[in-house]
Amino acid sequence: MRKLLFIYLILIGLFVIYVYNYQTESETTREWSENELRGSMDETYVMVTFQVGIDYWKRAVKGFEDAAEALNVSVEYRGATQYDVEEEITVLEQVIAKNPAGIAVSTMDPTALNDVIDKAVEAGIPVVMFDADAPESKAYSFLGTDNYYAGVQAAHKMADFLNETGEVGVITQPRQLNHQERTQGFQDTIFMEYPDMKVVAIKDGRGDQLLSRQAADEIMREYPDIAGIFATEANGGVGVGQATINKNLEDEIKIISFDTDKGTLDMIERGVISATLAQGTWEMGYWSLQHLFHLNHDIVEQEDGSNPLPRYVDTGISIVTEDNVESYYPK
Amino acid sequence: MRKLLFIYLILIGLFVIYVYNYQTESETTREWSENELRGSMDETYVMVTFQVGIDYWKRAVKGFEDAAEALNVSVEYRGATQYDVEEEITVLEQVIAKNPAGIAVSTMDPTALNDVIDKAVEAGIPVVMFDADAPESKAYSFLGTDNYYAGVQAAHKMADFLNETGEVGVITQPRQLNHQERTQGFQDTIFMEYPDMKVVAIKDGRGDQLLSRQAADEIMREYPDIAGIFATEANGGVGVGQATINKNLEDEIKIISFDTDKGTLDMIERGVISATLAQGTWEMGYWSLQHLFHLNHDIVEQEDGSNPLPRYVDTGISIVTEDNVESYYPK
Repeated sequence: MRKLLFIYLILIGLFVIYVYNYQTESETTREWSENELRGSMDETYVMVTFQVGIDYWKRAVKGFEDAAEALNVSVEYRGATQYDVEEEITVLEQVIAKNPAGIAVSTMDPTALNDVIDKAVEAGIPVVMFDADAPESKAYSFLGTDNYYAGVQAAHKMADFLNETGEVGVITQPRQLNHQERTQGFQDTIFMEYPDMKVVAIKDGRGDQLLSRQAADEIMREYPDIAGIFATEANGGVGVGQATINKNLEDEIKIISFDTDKGTLDMIERGVISATLAQGTWEMGYWSLQHLFHLNHDIVEQEDGSNPLPRYVDTGISIVTEDNVESYYPK
Repeated sequence: MRKLLFIYLILIGLFVIYVYNYQTESETTREWSENELRGSMDETYVMVTFQVGIDYWKRAVKGFEDAAEALNVSVEYRGATQYDVEEEITVLEQVIAKNPAGIAVSTMDPTALNDVIDKAVEAGIPVVMFDADAPESKAYSFLGTDNYYAGVQAAHKMADFLNETGEVGVITQPRQLNHQERTQGFQDTIFMEYPDMKVVAIKDGRGDQLLSRQAADEIMREYPDIAGIFATEANGGVGVGQATINKNLEDEIKIISFDTDKGTLDMIERGVISATLAQGTWEMGYWSLQHLFHLNHDIVEQEDGSNPLPRYVDTGISIVTEDNVESYYPK
């Protein structure tokens, strides 16, 4: 009887020690975890864009989701269905009303969203901008493509294709800042680094396939020796491609385009467009959520009280050619 | 007897269930942790700079350490004691020989370290650059100040101080790219945004206190109405400060300087220098380690095989004035 009671007590004792150890261990973990990069699933971050349906956002959403998995938090994707700034404001208002843990916004207008963004920030909701900035808003940081540098890389690739010789043209949208920057980077680089190349024409394609095709026709007529054309956006690239096919010049003229919509990728597969610049949309999504998480968790308090985020992140571009086009089709 | 045996068995049963539960929980955690942002303490990342002793690196090292705490990894700080590129190469060789988990490097020369950096990357050691880039090396990304944009912010602050009116000058190092960019950003912004202001003089201070003081003397002599001077580096700022004290003009002429060494901070406390631009050195250290961790852990494999890092991170600047100078003294 006594012996058994003794065993009984030892067992209870062991059990208590075990539970005690387990709890101590949890506490150690909890102490360490003050700054750890792990949230909870009831913490929801929202990505907001315009034109929610288009392929362009898919990789950005994927990056946002991948970061959510890494950080153990929840994410949602919302947006205006149309290219309509009023609709985007309404969606943003609805998202703010739910008091999310943070919002990553891409705006179709550099100023129209300022008031609603500032309202969110003032309500204590972290906001970062990605892909297209609202520079005068109170958003904490911007993650997107350095368009000037993208133009620089387009110029180097064009020089590669043309063995650093020949006349080249640009089809762009001269009224939009990002397109001006792409053109400038291209032009400056050709001028400064490739003395045997020359930018002979810069035409307005208005972001329209047909008008870009007509602009390319003009360039081919005015400059019969034209060896390459850089289109600063996707519709332009496809328009230029059609113009070269139409004149049976698709093997003669090298085309470099922008972005990775289906029409562009198809023309790369057919060898009509030689290369396109894919923006780092996955990176935009992934690092946007990292920024929001750091703001929401006050990860590290800095002595001077400034926030721990970089001001601007250039998410970079990748060059897509026949060799790697396959991996850019949405899955 | 039987009854006690029964209790005995129940207790053992409970114990087994408890242990089993505990292990299942561990396994769930382990499964989730594939992408989690938590390393192990035997994983050591190294920061390498030149001139290890100077205050400038302290906040960068702090950022690197704070990220190590957040990510549960180990860090070390190594470097050349002198401003000597050969010594930095030797240190980097020694660090590589130990096969660390990753290296964050700041170089004093944009090309001299390329071979040793490339050697590390080819050996599978992730390398990122911070503060000063080696753009043609194989390092994966660069984190540092956008110097043009820093110049833009200096111009806005100067306009603030001068109520958008008056003649201003610049003391700089015209042979160094980062200083050219700071000057250009300042000049462009004054020209484009402040019609009642004018940059009347840009002088070479050679990064030297005495020569900068002489350059400031010249400006004050040639332009007696000079209302503000922007010094693009710290020795220059102190030199300009001495020049204004010498002429009893320290209350008349607004000085904006760069960086936060003790001499500069002391002159801000005394009201001689009106503001200085603090670079985001903490951010450089923190986000460098994040980048290295992501490379080392292959955090997310992208479909196109590209690495998940941004190409460039602008770590931004903060403006230091009398109001917040206290928090910038090293503790």
